[in-house]
Amino acid sequence: MKDFQFKNTTDIRFGSNRIETELHDAVAQFGPNVLLTYGGGSIKRSGLYDSVKKILSDLNIIELAGIEPNPKINSVREGQKLAKENKIDVVLAVGGGSVVDASKVIASSAFYEGDPWDLVLDSTKRFKLDQLPLVDILTLSATGTEMNAGSVISNPETNDKLGTYGPNTPAVSFLDPALTMSVSKWQTAAGSIDIFSHLTEQYFDKEKNNDVSDGMIEGIMRTVIKWAPIAVAEPDNYDARANLMWSSTMALNGIVRLGYQDGWTSHPIEHELSAYYDITHGVGLGIITPRWMKFVLSAETVAKFAKFGRNVWHIQNDNDQVVADIAIQAVYDWVKSLGVPTTLPGVDINDDTNFKVMAESAVKVGQLDSAVYVDMSVNDVVDLYKATMTTDGFE
Amino acid sequence: MKDFQFKNTTDIRFGSNRIETELHDAVAQFGPNVLLTYGGGSIKRSGLYDSVKKILSDLNIIELAGIEPNPKINSVREGQKLAKENKIDVVLAVGGGSVVDASKVIASSAFYEGDPWDLVLDSTKRFKLDQLPLVDILTLSATGTEMNAGSVISNPETNDKLGTYGPNTPAVSFLDPALTMSVSKWQTAAGSIDIFSHLTEQYFDKEKNNDVSDGMIEGIMRTVIKWAPIAVAEPDNYDARANLMWSSTMALNGIVRLGYQDGWTSHPIEHELSAYYDITHGVGLGIITPRWMKFVLSAETVAKFAKFGRNVWHIQNDNDQVVADIAIQAVYDWVKSLGVPTTLPGVDINDDTNFKVMAESAVKVGQLDSAVYVDMSVNDVVDLYKATMTTDGFE
Repeated sequence: MKDFQFKNTTDIRFGSNRIETELHDAVAQFGPNVLLTYGGGSIKRSGLYDSVKKILSDLNIIELAGIEPNPKINSVREGQKLAKENKIDVVLAVGGGSVVDASKVIASSAFYEGDPWDLVLDSTKRFKLDQLPLVDILTLSATGTEMNAGSVISNPETNDKLGTYGPNTPAVSFLDPALTMSVSKWQTAAGSIDIFSHLTEQYFDKEKNNDVSDGMIEGIMRTVIKWAPIAVAEPDNYDARANLMWSSTMALNGIVRLGYQDGWTSHPIEHELSAYYDITHGVGLGIITPRWMKFVLSAETVAKFAKFGRNVWHIQNDNDQVVADIAIQAVYDWVKSLGVPTTLPGVDINDDTNFKVMAESAVKVGQLDSAVYVDMSVNDVVDLYKATMTTDGFE
Repeated sequence: MKDFQFKNTTDIRFGSNRIETELHDAVAQFGPNVLLTYGGGSIKRSGLYDSVKKILSDLNIIELAGIEPNPKINSVREGQKLAKENKIDVVLAVGGGSVVDASKVIASSAFYEGDPWDLVLDSTKRFKLDQLPLVDILTLSATGTEMNAGSVISNPETNDKLGTYGPNTPAVSFLDPALTMSVSKWQTAAGSIDIFSHLTEQYFDKEKNNDVSDGMIEGIMRTVIKWAPIAVAEPDNYDARANLMWSSTMALNGIVRLGYQDGWTSHPIEHELSAYYDITHGVGLGIITPRWMKFVLSAETVAKFAKFGRNVWHIQNDNDQVVADIAIQAVYDWVKSLGVPTTLPGVDINDDTNFKVMAESAVKVGQLDSAVYVDMSVNDVVDLYKATMTTDGFE
């Protein structure tokens, strides 16, 4: 087990009906000037927007609307301007991972004189800056951003989609599973696959004998595998929404990665897809992950895949290779069962003209040729993209 | 899943060789006057005491030695006096759970004018007090005290052994698995059983459908079951010590209990044994737990025990009752395999004269008749104590 340091001060408020009684003080403790950030109209349709405005009616609310999925640097630039102009004390993000991600970078940008894209390109700059406190009300279970310091921001001008980290996790995160009942089947499936992918990225790691993290991850994987299809089929099932919501937080609040080397592969490879084609991140991961598993499965890794098959999928067979093969097929079948496409043509990507440049970027950004579970060259990543064009090997 | 709030600000420093480079600043950030608390001579024999004194040689160190296992209120009283007389800024606890537990109550008592036993009897008083920051260097994997706000303190005059909680978890905890390599086989076994018991106490819960916590606990259970016998057989096995150390923290830092009702049974029942006979806590739990499992197994609970058997012990059988029975026997066999006694006569408790008064206290302190997985009356607890007098039903 690798050495580690861990500290996470986010205050989690999990459950229904907490916003009514706890949101005001959670925000007002930081001051009266609030930057309220959100996405499209869904929080207006659901009534959440009106509730929040009413609860905070004695505070000075400045609004930044229109933060899109795969949040763009332009939203951060707008937020930076508003934060400075209005002497903002606290950012309140209401929405999914994209809104919270953008809000974190806005919280840093409020103390930066230059273009926020500088901060995305070089996170070390953010650690030299102060950061506004962030309170969030999460409306989608997926990214884990509600209890970590990371964001992923896109720049359409350069086709970049990059991770960035600041010094602070959110101050207070409200996790009400009932707020996710209105999430579409598509986004529920995509969010669940995103959670599952966060777990595979950490679980398949070069470090050996980290059974605490392995064991916790296996348990959270079983939870997501069990409850995602239920949430898709029964959107109002509270137990399904609650298990997915807490899984999303635990999958990426930094705890289950402790003791690992923590090199990620599928995410950098998927980020290129989202950056070039603006597809739904979780759907892209569902397409990439089973092919990536086939690529990394070898005599060196078969024991870990067999552990995965036995502890996560309850596959009963004494032959490691057999268990590994069944487990990878099970991942593919689970993704498919959630009703999302399993190939790139399924999300309207029909040409391979960008694969080379995407692969080059993925390898560079993700250090895929040196710092991950099984190293990948540019050609390996191109081959992987090509494998996602058909269902060959899985159907 | 039950609603919950969670925030835990402890800064964990896990791994070897951190003390040399990080301990000084971790302590000195709070001020120059340090109360150094420890137990017997083991940290002097190991050289840890000399290292700590050298690293902190520019600070003003006041010492409180002699904190015993099952820490006594008298140690807390001494610490309170020293903290007040020397205007202590920070408590540095070096030792196992007992030293850290006592130090937490000392940290509260420094701001209290009365007898610290008042604070143990009524934790709410501690939440009205300030609390000195606590840094610890853990030398035993067992209680999880390094990342929670709880302590268990004994009062030999009244035969009480009670839990108490303060507002703060430790500020910084140094977890160096190598420091636990000198722990005896007996204490290694007892500590591992204590970890396992913390997990069963939380896992067997009235709340249903909390698969995130269930799954994480199952993973940590498998870890403890696997590595405890290895640590007993090979005291210098780093992987074994590291997995047990991080398991002990994760088992009781508050995370895996989230979403549960969290009523504990075996601990209150064992605490009476330790209070009356001063036996090793973990050994007492190893004697109590399999009998408690037999008591609570019924048509209502068999499904949870079958889940436990399949996910933790990999028992392959379609009949829930069969799996449950095998799993409970497996717990007993695992305890025995660690080389500790499995009956009360094995720890020199040969008379049943105190069982009634102990059972009455356990039911009262633990609210066993109303707030636990399966309610227990005084007579039920007496019967359970009686069942621990022999190996009947297990051998």
